[in-house]
Amino acid sequence: MTAKGHTDARQQLAGVVVGVDLGGTNTSVGMVGDDGKQLVHSVFPTHPRSSAADFVRRLAGVIAELGTKLPAGTAVRGIGIASPAANGLRGTIESPANLEWGTVNIRDLVQQQFNVPVAVANDANAALAGERLYGVARGMKNVIMLTLGTGLGAGIAVDGRIVQGENGAAGEFGHITINPGGRMCGCGRRGCVETYVSASGLCRTAVELLAERLEPSALRSTSFKDITAEMVSRLAGEGDPIAREAVAVTGRHLGMLVANLAAAFDPEAVVLYGGLVNAGELLVAPARETFDRNAMNIYRNTVRILVSSLNNGEAAVLGAGCHVRDLIAGKSPG
Amino acid sequence: MTAKGHTDARQQLAGVVVGVDLGGTNTSVGMVGDDGKQLVHSVFPTHPRSSAADFVRRLAGVIAELGTKLPAGTAVRGIGIASPAANGLRGTIESPANLEWGTVNIRDLVQQQFNVPVAVANDANAALAGERLYGVARGMKNVIMLTLGTGLGAGIAVDGRIVQGENGAAGEFGHITINPGGRMCGCGRRGCVETYVSASGLCRTAVELLAERLEPSALRSTSFKDITAEMVSRLAGEGDPIAREAVAVTGRHLGMLVANLAAAFDPEAVVLYGGLVNAGELLVAPARETFDRNAMNIYRNTVRILVSSLNNGEAAVLGAGCHVRDLIAGKSPG
Repeated sequence: MTAKGHTDARQQLAGVVVGVDLGGTNTSVGMVGDDGKQLVHSVFPTHPRSSAADFVRRLAGVIAELGTKLPAGTAVRGIGIASPAANGLRGTIESPANLEWGTVNIRDLVQQQFNVPVAVANDANAALAGERLYGVARGMKNVIMLTLGTGLGAGIAVDGRIVQGENGAAGEFGHITINPGGRMCGCGRRGCVETYVSASGLCRTAVELLAERLEPSALRSTSFKDITAEMVSRLAGEGDPIAREAVAVTGRHLGMLVANLAAAFDPEAVVLYGGLVNAGELLVAPARETFDRNAMNIYRNTVRILVSSLNNGEAAVLGAGCHVRDLIAGKSPG
Repeated sequence: MTAKGHTDARQQLAGVVVGVDLGGTNTSVGMVGDDGKQLVHSVFPTHPRSSAADFVRRLAGVIAELGTKLPAGTAVRGIGIASPAANGLRGTIESPANLEWGTVNIRDLVQQQFNVPVAVANDANAALAGERLYGVARGMKNVIMLTLGTGLGAGIAVDGRIVQGENGAAGEFGHITINPGGRMCGCGRRGCVETYVSASGLCRTAVELLAERLEPSALRSTSFKDITAEMVSRLAGEGDPIAREAVAVTGRHLGMLVANLAAAFDPEAVVLYGGLVNAGELLVAPARETFDRNAMNIYRNTVRILVSSLNNGEAAVLGAGCHVRDLIAGKSPG
C-alpha cells in the first residue's frame, strides 16, 4: 500500500471526499480535496471471488489507514464509487463480467459501514468526468472516453451532457460486433470489439500470432493463462516481434473503432484510458494511422485521439469524488 | 402534381408554414397549419443537374400553385427546408452526394425569393422531429431515425435533444465501415454500410446475386443502370428469388447495424424511414430477426425496430415546418 501527497496534505482541511475506482483486479482509493486534487492514494486487490461485504470491510480498513495521513479532524464527507456495470440511479453493481458478486447494492453496503452520502457511477463515466474536469478533455463538450482494461468500456459526453441511454446502457462500445462469427465474447456472442481491443483481447491476439507465425518470442514459453497484457506490452517495448505485432494489430482495430465512432458522434476527441494505454505509441501510432486511413475525410482533421493525462486510475477516482460532491450539493451528475 | 387536404383546407387560416423535403430525385412540399397537419401537398422532380437558382424558381411556382388550394388571404409565414448535407447554422447545403450544386446557401436563395423566415435542417433530423411530434416516435426521448433513401442518413435524439456533434456532423451512420476493403462508396472509401443498406445498396446486392446464383430472375434482362430499388422491392413481393434474397440480405445488414447502434446509444426505438422501407416485411422481418440474434441481451427486449407511420416524405416536411415555426417563435431547434 502506498500513499503520496499531490499537495501538502498537512494543511488544515475541513473535509475530503473519497473516490473509489473498483476494478476487476485492483481497487484504487483516493482522498480528494475541495479543489479536486488527490491528497492521498492507495491501491489494494479487489479479490473478485470473495464477497462484496468482505470487499467493503477491506475498503473500510484502507480508508481508515489513508485517514491517518491527513491532519487530525479531517472529516470524510462522502464516498464516490466508480465500477463497471454500475447503475447510478439504483446504487447497484449489476452482474459485472469481472466480479463474481452477482447484483449487489454497493451504495447500501458502503452507507451502512460509513454513514456518509455515497454516490455510485459507471467507471467509464466517472473517468470521463475526471478527465473533463482535470485532464486532457478539460472544457470539451463532445468527447468520448474509451476505458481499455480487462474489457472495453466507454463514457460519452454530447453537448456537455453524459449520454445514459433509455435504460442507462449507452456506451457499450465493447459489444459492437466487428467480426460476425469471430472470437467468443464473455457476453455470450461472437466478434465483439472488446474481444480484440482490451487487455484480454491483446493477449488473445498475441497467442493467435504465436500459432500463425514462426518468429521467436518470449511468449512461446508462457502458458495462455499466464500471459498478461502488461507482459505483452513490455515485450513489445523490448522488440519481441510477436508482442510488437499483437500491440499493432490491437491498435489498428482501435483506430477503426474510433473512425466508426467519429461517424456516429462527431466528437472533438476520443480519450484513451486504462491499463492497455501503457503500451504507449506502439499502440497509439497504429491507431492514429488506421483512423487517418479509414475515417471519412470530414473527421480526419477534426477528431483527435488523445491519451489520458491523469495517472492510471486517477481519472475515475477524481470523477467518483466529483459525483459524490455533486450528490452532497444536491446536483444531479452529468 | 397532386394536392390533397388532410383537414378541411377551406377553413379560415391566419397563416401556414411551408415544409420542403429536398431529395436527390424528388422534392416534397407541404403547407402545414398551426396544428402541425399538412393541408396541401405536392411532389416535383428536383432535377439535381440543373442549378440551385433554377430549383428555387420551380419551388416558387409549386408554392404559388399550392397557395391557390388554400383560402384567399392565407399567408405563408415561413419556409422550412430539409435536405441532405444541410448545415442549419449556416443555412447551406454542402456538396451533397446526390445533387450537383456544390455548396449553396439555400436559405439566402429562398429568402430572396419569398421574403419570409427560412429555416434549413438536415433531412434526417427534420424527419426525426416530425416523427417525434406526429409519428411512431411520439414522446420518445432516446430514439434514432434511419433514413433509407439513395444513401443512409440518420437523426439521433438523446434525452430529448438532437445530437449534432462538435461540427454538426454526427449521425453519419451510412459511413460506418462494416466491411473493410468492401464495396466502393461515393465518399471515396470502401465497405461503408450505406453501400449495402440503402436503395443503391439494394440494387448492388441484387446485381451481385445475379452473378453469384443461377435462379431465373426478371432482373437478368435489365441493365445495371436501369435496376431501381422500387423494381427490386416490387419483384421481391412477386416472389422473384433473386430480388427476394437481395431484400433479405439488405434487411440482415440493417439488423446488424441496429444491434450495433443499440450498444452505442441504448435507444427506446430505431425508426426506419424512406423509400427502401416500401419493401415492407420482406426487409423488416430479416432485420428484426438479425437484431434479435445479434444484439446484446440487455437490448433484445428493450430496443424496438419501428417503421415510420407518416407517409413517405411527410415526416421531413412536417419536421421542416416545425423548424421554421420554432425559428419564428425564437426557439432554437432540437
